Amino acid sequence: MIQTPYLLFLGDAPDALAAKVAQGIKDWRPENSVGQFRLPGCGADMKLPDMTLEEGLAAGAKTLVIGVANRGGVISDAWKEVLVQALNMGYDIASGLHNLLRDEDALVAAARVNGRTLFDVRIPSVAYPIANGVKRSGKRCLAIGTDCSVGKMYTGLAMDTEMQKRGMKSTFRPTGQTGILITGGGVPLDAVIADFMAGAVEYLTPDNDADHWDHIEGQGSLFHVSYSGVTMALIHGGQPDALVLCHEPTRSHMRGLPDYTLPSLQQLRDMAMPIAQIANPNVKVIGVSVNTQHMSEDEAIAYLADLEAELGLPAVDTFRQGAGRLVDALDAL
Amino acid sequence: MIQTPYLLFLGDAPDALAAKVAQGIKDWRPENSVGQFRLPGCGADMKLPDMTLEEGLAAGAKTLVIGVANRGGVISDAWKEVLVQALNMGYDIASGLHNLLRDEDALVAAARVNGRTLFDVRIPSVAYPIANGVKRSGKRCLAIGTDCSVGKMYTGLAMDTEMQKRGMKSTFRPTGQTGILITGGGVPLDAVIADFMAGAVEYLTPDNDADHWDHIEGQGSLFHVSYSGVTMALIHGGQPDALVLCHEPTRSHMRGLPDYTLPSLQQLRDMAMPIAQIANPNVKVIGVSVNTQHMSEDEAIAYLADLEAELGLPAVDTFRQGAGRLVDALDAL
Repeated sequence: MIQTPYLLFLGDAPDALAAKVAQGIKDWRPENSVGQFRLPGCGADMKLPDMTLEEGLAAGAKTLVIGVANRGGVISDAWKEVLVQALNMGYDIASGLHNLLRDEDALVAAARVNGRTLFDVRIPSVAYPIANGVKRSGKRCLAIGTDCSVGKMYTGLAMDTEMQKRGMKSTFRPTGQTGILITGGGVPLDAVIADFMAGAVEYLTPDNDADHWDHIEGQGSLFHVSYSGVTMALIHGGQPDALVLCHEPTRSHMRGLPDYTLPSLQQLRDMAMPIAQIANPNVKVIGVSVNTQHMSEDEAIAYLADLEAELGLPAVDTFRQGAGRLVDALDAL
Repeated sequence: MIQTPYLLFLGDAPDALAAKVAQGIKDWRPENSVGQFRLPGCGADMKLPDMTLEEGLAAGAKTLVIGVANRGGVISDAWKEVLVQALNMGYDIASGLHNLLRDEDALVAAARVNGRTLFDVRIPSVAYPIANGVKRSGKRCLAIGTDCSVGKMYTGLAMDTEMQKRGMKSTFRPTGQTGILITGGGVPLDAVIADFMAGAVEYLTPDNDADHWDHIEGQGSLFHVSYSGVTMALIHGGQPDALVLCHEPTRSHMRGLPDYTLPSLQQLRDMAMPIAQIANPNVKVIGVSVNTQHMSEDEAIAYLADLEAELGLPAVDTFRQGAGRLVDALDAL
């Protein structure tokens, strides 16, 4: 686990979009950040207190988290200077960049001298077991999508947040680098060796209280030929009790696959159910989560109402409407 | 590609079972082996000429292939002495052992000095791409199973051999270490990073002549929760035109999963077809391949006849009956 709270490193991010990871941490775990660190020319602002490294430490920060994508695939000298200084002052550093911290000699040396840890969250740090398929205690909910990047992480975080608010037992279980940095731990599933994917998901979601819900972050899609194997391992390793179907209705084709159209939500349900029943015969589809950001409010409301009628399931945009009705459906199981 | 022909290293294998890899090479690619090399006490015999390293070289061998499992998870000093000597004499060495050749300092040093190659076929040697899903020319057949280890590799090799005999264009495409050692090349799919599994299969089965068939070696099972993600990537990366259903009818539970029963062949077909249609809308199930080794001849014949009537597909044991009827079915597509 990455130690919290964080100081969020925004570097010289040109705009808010480049600081997506920092934004996710700010939105979903505001208590995990004491402030933000910006270099001259930074165009992103998380509306957190601007702090020097010294001020961050004084405010209790344990880890400097790189909350921004880097440009040109290199960690610049300007960044490195700050990162080395942070290690010298006692920070750990966590990063989801493709360029690994561990490949930078200056960072490795400074971490070693100071006894600090470099977290490259894209790379597994655990030798995961092969899945054994044994039924685990506690409940699990998995978001699956008609395509990649349709709001599965957002849905899981929104449901977890709603459950916490209601005083229900709930944990968000990240399977990608943004989720891992938001919560401080998880499994970078797309970087796990094929034979151990389902085992990594079992490891991520261990036995728990009978009334505890794990919200497992979804990845890929059963209908996305590049990544469907990862989705399969999530379903069989996660042995979910509940599935939430996720969709983005304005896509003209599958992400990155111009020749492939999206399936309908019915097709997704009909393919996923027999697959999920192998690992958990009692699995239910409990609702639909739609990303309607490219529709007007009126269009979105009408679309969701139609879906509810067609599928007989609550259909919501968790960004516009919150996850209350999805949590109601879980609670009713 | 591993250079052929081979000298097969049987070491001090206690019995034929320990020399499964050598047996596979001998059975399926007899032209790939000039002879066998045995240490004192070896209880395995491939009925190939016994040769010294010198005799193997004289007979044209390019690679010493470790055709046997090692005991106790170590590469013994007795083995190492032979392997170093082989490198010094000009052999490459290929191995599917869990213990990697590259982790043995003496072997690495001898390979470097002599400019030879160590092939650890359990480990990918290529940076595979992410799958792009683009339709490829040529035809592909994939064996899928109700469980792991039900005869998928055997089925693919038998169909390839039958096609070669008939003068049809055909290639066996290995996805596991035994298959890779048999043919000299392939993808060790269970060791590939999750994000690149389907891309590795695309890489393995490139564009080809319109009348050429790739027989892609199957792995795992859609119904085996430990490995189903690998099977999924094979189906979506392989975009098969034809599926062969493989089964072993006497299993009481899924391999390694005592709480999971095997699906029926109908269940396998019904789950696999919509999945395979995503990558290739024209895919057909063309036949059934049953491993009846634990049944009497009469039981087997009756069982296969029943299956044919139920499924409306040719059902054969390729070991007892050959792959002729499966190839007929492919040919009729």
